[in-house]
Amino acid sequence: VRLVCDWGHEPSDSALHRLCPECRAPLSFRYEAPIRLGTGRGMWRFAERLPEGPGKRVTLGEGDTPLVRTRLPLGCAVHWKVEARNPTGSQKDRALAVAIAAGLGRGATRVIMASTGSAGMSCAAYAARAGMRCAILCPGDTPTERLAAMWMNGAQVLRVDGSFEELMQIIAIARTELGYYETTTYRKANPYQAEGPKTIAYEIVEELGASPDAVLVPIGGGGTLAGIWRGFTELAGLGLAKRLPRMVGIQNVRFNALALALERGLHTDEEVADLKLDASIPVLTKNLKHAVPPDTEDALRALRESGGQVVTVTDEEALAAQRELARADGLFAEPSSSVGLVAARRLIEGGALAPDSVAVAVVTGSGLREMDTVAQHHRPEIPRLAVGETLERLRAGT
Amino acid sequence: VRLVCDWGHEPSDSALHRLCPECRAPLSFRYEAPIRLGTGRGMWRFAERLPEGPGKRVTLGEGDTPLVRTRLPLGCAVHWKVEARNPTGSQKDRALAVAIAAGLGRGATRVIMASTGSAGMSCAAYAARAGMRCAILCPGDTPTERLAAMWMNGAQVLRVDGSFEELMQIIAIARTELGYYETTTYRKANPYQAEGPKTIAYEIVEELGASPDAVLVPIGGGGTLAGIWRGFTELAGLGLAKRLPRMVGIQNVRFNALALALERGLHTDEEVADLKLDASIPVLTKNLKHAVPPDTEDALRALRESGGQVVTVTDEEALAAQRELARADGLFAEPSSSVGLVAARRLIEGGALAPDSVAVAVVTGSGLREMDTVAQHHRPEIPRLAVGETLERLRAGT
Repeated sequence: VRLVCDWGHEPSDSALHRLCPECRAPLSFRYEAPIRLGTGRGMWRFAERLPEGPGKRVTLGEGDTPLVRTRLPLGCAVHWKVEARNPTGSQKDRALAVAIAAGLGRGATRVIMASTGSAGMSCAAYAARAGMRCAILCPGDTPTERLAAMWMNGAQVLRVDGSFEELMQIIAIARTELGYYETTTYRKANPYQAEGPKTIAYEIVEELGASPDAVLVPIGGGGTLAGIWRGFTELAGLGLAKRLPRMVGIQNVRFNALALALERGLHTDEEVADLKLDASIPVLTKNLKHAVPPDTEDALRALRESGGQVVTVTDEEALAAQRELARADGLFAEPSSSVGLVAARRLIEGGALAPDSVAVAVVTGSGLREMDTVAQHHRPEIPRLAVGETLERLRAGT
Repeated sequence: VRLVCDWGHEPSDSALHRLCPECRAPLSFRYEAPIRLGTGRGMWRFAERLPEGPGKRVTLGEGDTPLVRTRLPLGCAVHWKVEARNPTGSQKDRALAVAIAAGLGRGATRVIMASTGSAGMSCAAYAARAGMRCAILCPGDTPTERLAAMWMNGAQVLRVDGSFEELMQIIAIARTELGYYETTTYRKANPYQAEGPKTIAYEIVEELGASPDAVLVPIGGGGTLAGIWRGFTELAGLGLAKRLPRMVGIQNVRFNALALALERGLHTDEEVADLKLDASIPVLTKNLKHAVPPDTEDALRALRESGGQVVTVTDEEALAAQRELARADGLFAEPSSSVGLVAARRLIEGGALAPDSVAVAVVTGSGLREMDTVAQHHRPEIPRLAVGETLERLRAGT
């Protein structure tokens, strides 16, 4: 495995790198080893295609998530790739398993990241498993409930009353002065973690025997979509997939930076930042909330190269999809992670998915991590009854 | 596959059976097919050893849960079998996948069960996946939070102010008058679901290459322990395991019916009921709370045949174990499901597990389903800080 920057420099792979030491460009990895589909268990069966070799695996059993075909009559074959089934309940476990293994193999003893949710839960669990100290910084107003699992895993969780930029400054000081290894999940902060999501593509092709026509991915930072795309291109490059899917990003209608970027021909972080989306608008689908997704450039490249598009959804659509997914297919996902259903319908209605096509939507996170949303927005009706009333209700069926 | 009652009668397998139609004895299954270890994915790769054939599988990707060796220096090799990784977060998914498949294959369109937690969540999800109507009855004082996920999956959830006996009477009427199929998870109510847990034994032997010296299982109804034992005996009968493990049950010290039964030579439900344990004592480890575990007789047989024992734990020990498991191994389990750590220590200290022995403890359920316990009993300390203070805290490391 070779570490290469976007301008072609090759720093030595023996240290922990963040950006190219020569030119500060983002880093990625090149592999000679083949991809072996169909054998072994878990994400690390692809170890030869991941930055860290078999010697320093850190695992909680991530990967090998189910691909479940929906029972809903949507008009074409739609499968859910249930990433919610990863150890801490999201696709971030693939990224953090790789990032923590890379750190452990290179002597890191303490990790730090900024996160409000999935990535933080994942980092805390893998750092615990690796015996590393872990600090998670999150916005000052994050509810304790969302952070309690990270704290249980032994992380030092700190709510910071400061802007995103200030959080980044704190992390920079922690890196340079306090010896922390940063695992925030975007490629310019940590190139190792960016390799995790591509194994989602490997597993999809393993199971379907081919690339689907489209892969639908909720966009938080954009790195999951970009990583999955890289996985498909690797498979195609090795002759393991004959064609490539279209990548479809899903954004909240209020945080539609990448949709606008595609419309207006924008490519860079700076151009997207100039859209000046208001980062303070409250949305329920918090995992879709980034005014400028930190992996914007990679995500835009994947969307364009694949001939894909961005679908935008409202909070209301996300909530309705959450309920429908649970009731029709028995899958209880977060609202942010249920939006694949909304996007699939949109694409089928608009003709972008033909009746004979196959789509895979990534269900990124488990609904169990957001029970407050259920209580507040779905308002479960669970009556308390006497024995006689119970039989009446059963007879009525409601 | 043959359906056989404990007295040897063989009812036809074409209808849904609850007890032997001839003598009302409990039912179980006998198989001619071999157990194929080491190939395929998920629980249904063992379909030939389960009551329902491949034609009527209902699956959310249950089974193939990770076996994770603890980093804690406990004095012998202890592995966690992480059943929390099943689709709805517990080992019950194996039981309900089989029960719902059996019902679907025999024409059931509505299911009912009594449950306060794991089994209900599982039943609701699998019934949804199968397109079946689902009713869950639970005690009147069950908090809404514990039931919201079942409701999301479309179940009719009813809290009933009545005794366990009254709930059973309601279910009996629902079965006989309203056409409901009962899936409550004990063998005398549903012999199909009782086949699910044995696949845990298959997977353990697959991964370790042999039976461990001991298997530690938290006891709720007792069916999981009994089912796992059956799995090991099947493997031994087919020559796939050379020896059998000791089965170790784990009970709450206040609900220690099986521990007392072993001490006093009790065997039957009636004898254990005569212990008159007070079912109203509040305990935190609710999944360990049964005055008379409904699968008492099967569990006692497994404990005795295997030369095993019962370890009792306090709520405080369970909470401490929950925290330690999360911090040392990155596994966030319910308190009820973390007690394997307490039991392993007890057995090693008492000499029941020698330094060269191998133990597997089943981590039955995910901690994400009991965030209220974390808030109330672990009381996370998550400060809210200004930027400057944050750096001070990071420097201090606490």
